[in-house]
Amino acid sequence: MNIVVIGGGAAGSAAAARAKRLMPNANVILIEATDMITHGPCGIPYFISGIVSSRDSLVTYTPEVFERERGIKVLINSEVIDIDIDKHFVEVVKKNNYTKEKIIWDKLIIATGAIPIIPRIPGIDLKGIYAIRHPAYVHHLRDELSNLRTISIVGGSYLGIEMAEALLELGKRVILFEKESSLLPASLDEDMAKIVADELIKKGVEVHLGEQVIGFDGRERVESIVTNVNSYRVDGVILAMGVKPNVSLAQKAGIKIGSTGAIEVNEFMETNIDDIYAAGDVAEKIHRITKRRTWIPLAPTANKEGVVAGANAARGRILRFPGVIGTAITKFYDLYIARTGISEKEAKTLNIKYEAKMIRAKTKAHYYPSSKDVYIKMIIESSSSKIIGVQIVGWDPIVAGYIDIVAIAIERGVTIEDLFFSDLSYMPATAPVWHPLIVAARVLSKGIL
Amino acid sequence: MNIVVIGGGAAGSAAAARAKRLMPNANVILIEATDMITHGPCGIPYFISGIVSSRDSLVTYTPEVFERERGIKVLINSEVIDIDIDKHFVEVVKKNNYTKEKIIWDKLIIATGAIPIIPRIPGIDLKGIYAIRHPAYVHHLRDELSNLRTISIVGGSYLGIEMAEALLELGKRVILFEKESSLLPASLDEDMAKIVADELIKKGVEVHLGEQVIGFDGRERVESIVTNVNSYRVDGVILAMGVKPNVSLAQKAGIKIGSTGAIEVNEFMETNIDDIYAAGDVAEKIHRITKRRTWIPLAPTANKEGVVAGANAARGRILRFPGVIGTAITKFYDLYIARTGISEKEAKTLNIKYEAKMIRAKTKAHYYPSSKDVYIKMIIESSSSKIIGVQIVGWDPIVAGYIDIVAIAIERGVTIEDLFFSDLSYMPATAPVWHPLIVAARVLSKGIL
Repeated sequence: MNIVVIGGGAAGSAAAARAKRLMPNANVILIEATDMITHGPCGIPYFISGIVSSRDSLVTYTPEVFERERGIKVLINSEVIDIDIDKHFVEVVKKNNYTKEKIIWDKLIIATGAIPIIPRIPGIDLKGIYAIRHPAYVHHLRDELSNLRTISIVGGSYLGIEMAEALLELGKRVILFEKESSLLPASLDEDMAKIVADELIKKGVEVHLGEQVIGFDGRERVESIVTNVNSYRVDGVILAMGVKPNVSLAQKAGIKIGSTGAIEVNEFMETNIDDIYAAGDVAEKIHRITKRRTWIPLAPTANKEGVVAGANAARGRILRFPGVIGTAITKFYDLYIARTGISEKEAKTLNIKYEAKMIRAKTKAHYYPSSKDVYIKMIIESSSSKIIGVQIVGWDPIVAGYIDIVAIAIERGVTIEDLFFSDLSYMPATAPVWHPLIVAARVLSKGIL
Repeated sequence: MNIVVIGGGAAGSAAAARAKRLMPNANVILIEATDMITHGPCGIPYFISGIVSSRDSLVTYTPEVFERERGIKVLINSEVIDIDIDKHFVEVVKKNNYTKEKIIWDKLIIATGAIPIIPRIPGIDLKGIYAIRHPAYVHHLRDELSNLRTISIVGGSYLGIEMAEALLELGKRVILFEKESSLLPASLDEDMAKIVADELIKKGVEVHLGEQVIGFDGRERVESIVTNVNSYRVDGVILAMGVKPNVSLAQKAGIKIGSTGAIEVNEFMETNIDDIYAAGDVAEKIHRITKRRTWIPLAPTANKEGVVAGANAARGRILRFPGVIGTAITKFYDLYIARTGISEKEAKTLNIKYEAKMIRAKTKAHYYPSSKDVYIKMIIESSSSKIIGVQIVGWDPIVAGYIDIVAIAIERGVTIEDLFFSDLSYMPATAPVWHPLIVAARVLSKGIL
């Protein structure tokens, strides 16, 4: 039995590993277009800033080690250009020598990931405009940026914020444009996003909100960036306008693409075509709160979907992926920014009757030194008092812990009363005696708790 | 209506505040034996070490502010010496002038807390042997310790470990005795406790496990400590052998004491006597996993039980306290030590069929700097795969977040598969892409996940 996996990122590598583990006699073949597998694109900003010295650090396994330790055949620099769903083969081009090869599959797992959104606007092809895509393509970027003084970031996305820090660290002047009126508009409500924007400004980022980039000027290289408001001299541009599912191969093969633009899959990670699975950023997800199809491309989800697709390809419907709730986190210097569930904005769109409160709290006992400020916005469904969303912005890495506490709570239908009475830990060095999440629950209880 | 609360610590203050809030017309009277209310005994080690400069920092409210802002009558330096359950009054002695006063109550809340265990062994009354009790009594202790060179800590409890750090910080030689064969024997299994002991030893604490203190020698002051193994020259001794519920007043009044030695209460925090409630360290708790009565004295529990007792005293059975699962945390320098649910040891005692695994993981992406080691021991019920206990020891404050994630998970009956698929946050600076808790769940899945 041949199990073929297209894409050696988080989902593809996890799928290949799991399939081989559960069916040791299968030929598991992992096909990757670049020379890296198990790569971590989330680490790119830290490679740019120099915190991570080598792009090779961004991988978990080299192809050789993965092949040897896992017993998986790994084809690198190999691009799948066609999937034949009737004859059950894929056509692969070796990038080194342009030889073509057909590989037969009994089960196929598509894990082609996501690609950056590149706007079709004037000047987009000028030199000095960079999209951040894959660790395989970043080795020259750090060098190229080193000679540039003023760099514009297009998009107040997670990547945009992380790149802003990286570029400040390199001593650049940084101008950030976000066409919406607040940063991270798909993630945070405006009140929370304001705290983030203030921090970027405080650290020296020139933040332009509600300003849309409409083009670039320059002879060979980009020399200025043009928005609906003004034009700005720049030496380089980082595009951070988000990503989209890399579905062209699947689409061409006739595999069904869902309304989100990603491959439609069921909870077994099966596509509409028998024996073909999709996993990771190329696939749709179910939102566990709204029950709707959504597309939130993140590495941990990709890993788990890979496990499900690999296990089911090997053994048939033994695992189900229950969906996501949209947990995400980033940081800008010491400010940690996290969210899970649905925002107030989303609750409105979905016509959910909700209540929301924002509190400010400290992360340690009031008398313990180095206690930090944290802002928590909690959103509950009015009828049930169940927590449906939380956004947290605070100057303490414990924010990651807080958001994960809430993620479990939301998944399990925890109400504010349940949260209030949950047995969270306390000592002066790690939390206030009233945990900030419990304070948020209390405030929403309107005097009951 | 008179609502009288005995004890101005966490439970008593919370109860008084809640009762007044829910019944603004009531006379709420808070009676406290010392001159401090809303005090934080958990902060005492940090006062001793000097991290917290003033004992007054250890309170949240002064009596004056609490009285003024909350509209509660606060009697400080006032000791209740008798409760008359038939005639509904308490007898109070003013410590300043020894005047007695009777105060009538319609509802009474007992929140007399816990007191240190003082062993009745030879030499216990020598000078230089200190029990840590209440912030009101610590102002001289720091001064007294300043002249001493070698100090022995009796008990490898949370307090013992925290005091070991405080005393090392003051430049003392520290000798710690624990009669059981591992530190924190009521909290951690031996394998996890070993990691903690190694850290104490590494930092310079002389740790003696399995060695019971049987007496003290000296003329006026303690000069040596005698164990079942040897005798050691010391200049001072800190007793950290745990605490017991301060039930003498309740017991004398005829209020029922439970099998744990604390006041028996139901989920409404009612005692066996009508109109008398108990809350905080003086009261028994229900363990949410075992459903048994237990006694785990901790500040956050005390606060919440205070809220329940106060609310119900004012309004009658409007809140239920669902019990505890034994979440606790401490730290020793950079090592954070946390636990929740039941240990392997407890599972054995309770005849629960369980499986347990310990893993070591990193707290950040492998390529991100300053990633720390963390050890996680997870215990599941074999039949259901539900998580029933977790112990975590790691060199990163995120341990507090991890244990709270698990606390919610245990309370909600989360299985290892549920945890595996939970949408926990990820970015390189805050977690590995496979969250350490998810890795622990995977290892317990025996190849399914």
